[in-house]
Amino acid sequence: MASNISALSGGSLLLAWQLKDKHVLIVGGGDVASGRIESVLVADAKITLISPRAGLHSLTKRFIEATDRITYHDRVFNGAEDLGGIDMVLTAIDDVEKSREICALCRSLKIPVNVADIPSSCDFYFGSQVRDGPLQIMVSTNGQSPKLANIIRRKIEESLPEHAGEGIEKVGILRSKLKERAPGVGGEVGKRRMRWMIDVCNSWEMEELALLDDEMIAKLLDDGWEKNRVPKLTEVAPHARGTAASKSDLQGQESLLPFAMSIPLMCGFITGLVFTAGLVTRFVGNTRH
Amino acid sequence: MASNISALSGGSLLLAWQLKDKHVLIVGGGDVASGRIESVLVADAKITLISPRAGLHSLTKRFIEATDRITYHDRVFNGAEDLGGIDMVLTAIDDVEKSREICALCRSLKIPVNVADIPSSCDFYFGSQVRDGPLQIMVSTNGQSPKLANIIRRKIEESLPEHAGEGIEKVGILRSKLKERAPGVGGEVGKRRMRWMIDVCNSWEMEELALLDDEMIAKLLDDGWEKNRVPKLTEVAPHARGTAASKSDLQGQESLLPFAMSIPLMCGFITGLVFTAGLVTRFVGNTRH
Repeated sequence: MASNISALSGGSLLLAWQLKDKHVLIVGGGDVASGRIESVLVADAKITLISPRAGLHSLTKRFIEATDRITYHDRVFNGAEDLGGIDMVLTAIDDVEKSREICALCRSLKIPVNVADIPSSCDFYFGSQVRDGPLQIMVSTNGQSPKLANIIRRKIEESLPEHAGEGIEKVGILRSKLKERAPGVGGEVGKRRMRWMIDVCNSWEMEELALLDDEMIAKLLDDGWEKNRVPKLTEVAPHARGTAASKSDLQGQESLLPFAMSIPLMCGFITGLVFTAGLVTRFVGNTRH
Repeated sequence: MASNISALSGGSLLLAWQLKDKHVLIVGGGDVASGRIESVLVADAKITLISPRAGLHSLTKRFIEATDRITYHDRVFNGAEDLGGIDMVLTAIDDVEKSREICALCRSLKIPVNVADIPSSCDFYFGSQVRDGPLQIMVSTNGQSPKLANIIRRKIEESLPEHAGEGIEKVGILRSKLKERAPGVGGEVGKRRMRWMIDVCNSWEMEELALLDDEMIAKLLDDGWEKNRVPKLTEVAPHARGTAASKSDLQGQESLLPFAMSIPLMCGFITGLVFTAGLVTRFVGNTRH
């Protein structure tokens, strides 16, 4: 890795920024702003939205009406007084002068800022995103091609295991129940916990993890963690037997393969049959005459 | 979307943080720190690394030796004086007390900080990452399951179109050449540029985009942009005819299918041959006796 160090360049530092109970100011209420609002709500932030009502996108209006997590001001940005207690600023207005002014103010106050469409006025960029419960994926082309970022995002969405969000959620619950049962930070118990969780994630399919409920989690800990092994789904949920598929059964392509193969096999068989029958007929015909 | 607003919760704000020519302080030099160094180098930051030499991971040592983008101090963190001119702080040391102290200092100075293994001392988390040139992808499970994040990252890596990084790079060059040819921010020309770029990305496969060179880009702009259409690869690179595959030809599974099918076809043929030969032999035998 270090040998190819010159290749380590030209990218961004991808981060999952924490905004729980933080204050985000969004300036502008149009199409782009409505997308920003959604992303910021996902991160549990409190939003102050500043935009004349005439400029509000219909989705922005619905957000304002639907949640008390947005404090809305029907006016333009007023200057530094609007930045008190603000942890992050996102602007999405058409006024380039005003945008640059807001950016300069933010930088003087060390508030992270993103100005839509002006890369030099951005401390960070947004990317194309996938979200499924606790699972979040971002695709960035570092500004080279938003369209290709979108195409790749769609491919990723299609390739994700079914129920990935649910599976991750259940594993999160399993992990915290395990921590209750075998507490302690770091050390031997921490390492054993990590190893066992890795084994569970490697052994169970995402669809199987998504089926976990409280009862099954308790049984998985009793019969698995306590005995230092990883039980199968059918062991912790006997009622799931029959409906639950094993790791290999769940791979659709593999189970379809024998069927797909049987067609050329049959065609070949018939051709071989006809070919030999033809040969024999000629041979028999030749010997008879 | 807004109707399901209560579901917008429990996540992070995924960002591509810009660090070009910014100063990042990394405290600690072990395994985790070496990963941080790599991520931060990718983002073109200048690094100050503080860690007693005894605690350096072999990879960290190689980074220090291989690049002048790291200023290394063989000592422990000294306090606020180490934070002058620093834009971001990442710590990865075993000392929980010291880590919390560094975090408190950063927060008082409004410097974004990540303390490895102490979520409450993090303004942002890292995720599982994929990188291919300008393409960067991050998978976050919001702390629920780093192992599943890793499994999903691997699946994404496998599902990515071949040469995605190169394709994105070439599209970036095409975009900037187009902007030189048809300059202007926003307005009609901006919209037409965006539409044409989207058409190109939708019509060409990633593998085809990756083949673009300066000459082909010029031809694509002459025969495509100027005539408001999207030429095929073979039109802009006649020498690529024959070697270049069309959109559908490039789908490996399809082109492999005839070969995969020929095996059972052959097996069936031989079985049919042997089967019929056996039948005939018995029949001939029966009629002879």
